[in-house]
Amino acid sequence: MAYRATFRCFQGCDGSWPVTQPIYTCPTCGGLLEVVHDLAALAERTGPQWTKLFDERYKLNKWPYGSGVWGKREWVMPEIPDDDIVSMYEGSTNLFWAERYGQELGLSDLWVKLCGNSHSGSFKDLGMTVLVSVVRSAVRRGLQVKAVACASTGDTSAALAAYGAAAGLPIVVLLPRGKISTAQLVQPLAHGALVLGLDTDFDGCMAIVKRLAQENIVYLANSMNPLRIEGQKTVGIEVVQQFEWEVPDWIILPSGNLGNASALYAGFKMMRELGVISRFPRLVVAQAENANPLYRAWQAGKREVEPIVAKQTQATAIQIGNPVSAPRAVRALEAMNGLVEQASEQELADAAARADRTGMYTCPHTAVGLAVLEKLVSNGTIGSRDRTVCISTANGLKFTEFKVAYHESAIAGVTSNLKNPPVLLPPDFGQVVDAIGKRFD
Amino acid sequence: MAYRATFRCFQGCDGSWPVTQPIYTCPTCGGLLEVVHDLAALAERTGPQWTKLFDERYKLNKWPYGSGVWGKREWVMPEIPDDDIVSMYEGSTNLFWAERYGQELGLSDLWVKLCGNSHSGSFKDLGMTVLVSVVRSAVRRGLQVKAVACASTGDTSAALAAYGAAAGLPIVVLLPRGKISTAQLVQPLAHGALVLGLDTDFDGCMAIVKRLAQENIVYLANSMNPLRIEGQKTVGIEVVQQFEWEVPDWIILPSGNLGNASALYAGFKMMRELGVISRFPRLVVAQAENANPLYRAWQAGKREVEPIVAKQTQATAIQIGNPVSAPRAVRALEAMNGLVEQASEQELADAAARADRTGMYTCPHTAVGLAVLEKLVSNGTIGSRDRTVCISTANGLKFTEFKVAYHESAIAGVTSNLKNPPVLLPPDFGQVVDAIGKRFD
Repeated sequence: MAYRATFRCFQGCDGSWPVTQPIYTCPTCGGLLEVVHDLAALAERTGPQWTKLFDERYKLNKWPYGSGVWGKREWVMPEIPDDDIVSMYEGSTNLFWAERYGQELGLSDLWVKLCGNSHSGSFKDLGMTVLVSVVRSAVRRGLQVKAVACASTGDTSAALAAYGAAAGLPIVVLLPRGKISTAQLVQPLAHGALVLGLDTDFDGCMAIVKRLAQENIVYLANSMNPLRIEGQKTVGIEVVQQFEWEVPDWIILPSGNLGNASALYAGFKMMRELGVISRFPRLVVAQAENANPLYRAWQAGKREVEPIVAKQTQATAIQIGNPVSAPRAVRALEAMNGLVEQASEQELADAAARADRTGMYTCPHTAVGLAVLEKLVSNGTIGSRDRTVCISTANGLKFTEFKVAYHESAIAGVTSNLKNPPVLLPPDFGQVVDAIGKRFD
Repeated sequence: MAYRATFRCFQGCDGSWPVTQPIYTCPTCGGLLEVVHDLAALAERTGPQWTKLFDERYKLNKWPYGSGVWGKREWVMPEIPDDDIVSMYEGSTNLFWAERYGQELGLSDLWVKLCGNSHSGSFKDLGMTVLVSVVRSAVRRGLQVKAVACASTGDTSAALAAYGAAAGLPIVVLLPRGKISTAQLVQPLAHGALVLGLDTDFDGCMAIVKRLAQENIVYLANSMNPLRIEGQKTVGIEVVQQFEWEVPDWIILPSGNLGNASALYAGFKMMRELGVISRFPRLVVAQAENANPLYRAWQAGKREVEPIVAKQTQATAIQIGNPVSAPRAVRALEAMNGLVEQASEQELADAAARADRTGMYTCPHTAVGLAVLEKLVSNGTIGSRDRTVCISTANGLKFTEFKVAYHESAIAGVTSNLKNPPVLLPPDFGQVVDAIGKRFD
């Protein structure tokens, strides 16, 4: 059975283009594109037939089905041959049962989807496998590119550099110098990408990379390019699969550039259209208060999201004032009876510390999600028996400075209520015994 | 079918003890213990019946089979009830096909088992789930412990703190102050463990924690305790499972305290005894030249490994001069027709940089393994068509300082041949275009 996916205008203008074509905006209206699948063809399989196929492939080591993304290939990017796929077996991440953290909040059914437990340490791997596979396929069939490029607050550049290195493609990343963590900077360096540290912020880097793409100097890997959404949408499908095809009540998602919120909806929409599920969870988009353009629009009842200048936040990956995927995210919120909430620097730091004490190792973005969860439980929006999933977007190991600063009471404007500094001692048995007694007796 | 596992003396002295008992050495000879399974009972299932069971469980999200360790529970720790298990769905890690890196070495069948892509970022999770589950089970049945403790070069303490936090158990970790990376220190801090930074090295911390255990102040989680080997041994079983139950030709394992080398053998031995495989791979234990007590013994043809004072190495997790599990590792090497090789600081840094350029993000210990691989290919020991697996023990994200130092040419005594520093620019389009042309034209 042959399935097809093409680019179309998000707003509905006429025209469709092959996914291998380097086109990023609608030639008619200049707006975003999206990948559209041949749903009529896909619907010739029933919902149960799809879930059976996906279950059979899940975690199989046979190429490419060890990947949670490519195990759903017909829904993601159906025409890419096996040999063109660039995969590091992304997906199949732990849906962590947050038993102790949930208990603290009075929630019996709280789960955290650990997308950061991935090859490059963030959910970006899910989308990057799709984009880099399409580019490799296109290059092998004649596409001329000097390099594949992105502007990034960190995670995207790490993922692009890793997948590009695995594929042997030239990679350029533009980063806001001084505004991202060291771990995030050294990932693309290590993978051999050309790393340009520009003296501006994320939005400034984005402006330059868009122009590089418009002038056909690079192939654009930022989320204007809708390919990555096709991989990222599998996170929602995978969560439902891990619940044996049951839909949770709530999904909370920290989001900055808003591509992931759009992706989540795309996955749920597809499941519903193809008879796999019959309802949606409610979507909560969680923003950092210091970078909250969507929250402001939502509070004002506006569909148009106005750009702001983002203030500095510990949640650096979502420190974005002019989110590219805003229109897509608004559509997602409307379709999924969603809401937007925000968390302050103090709230996210506290939530991270509390969650870590229950076994998680939360990145600051996950902490934004958890802090928002806490608010929604406190105000009664989320009920104690509601099945709730918080998407954890990146590996805590990428945010060592955040955690070190917390435990050293060194985050400006934040009180480290749960700091746990090391006790420094000489190698003296008696003093060690005393220290243990002092803590645990 | 009821299976049993008990503690017995590694050297064969009489006596057996329940795995829930806090005993760490043989009361007769003072030597190491090991977990012994009831092989006669296990052998009532055939090899194919075991592999079918393990394959069925491998994909499931049903508790506790989302864990690569507990999916093999009858071989690991058969008597722990589901409710006592503390698991973060460890295992099921990517067996990465190192296509490009293999090509550089002339190897067509090279794989890297990415154990670092785990909850706490190292293979230690595999063993810690077993130990912490046993302790929780024992505590619920009356065992009195003030805390569970370990001495650690980093990874063990991170894993113990994470699993202890998930279980709500009090945790103490002893770390050599100033000799481990910041990321490794902050992990147990974040999880709420009592972290004691002692002004000594790993071996000094180990001496103190052994005494704390002997005096029953703590339950010992170091690898003298043989429980963790039962979980760690699943890595070899999982590799074979991922090859559809075929045995590779070589397994290369970076190893310091030598517990993991013992564990690897334990898994292969069990597979052979229970009819799942009929031969062993050859085992290569890879040591850092600066911390090479096993290598020295091997070169001298001695079975006794004499302690040395380990020198400083970038591969901090294997910077061990007095390896606890030396006798077990020697037995493993003999049974698996193994050999021991070493890598210098320059060699490991080069190997890490080369591997990273092909999409991996290697910790310095994996780099020791890869550098040793390169030597064995160069000298003809490993053939170009040999199926070779290198075990990657930790997540590169834990070793940011190592990678940053490499790309800043800041590792003492090491030349950074493949450094790739960022190009710092103002946000000027023309300069960006020039930089891209300079690199890729």
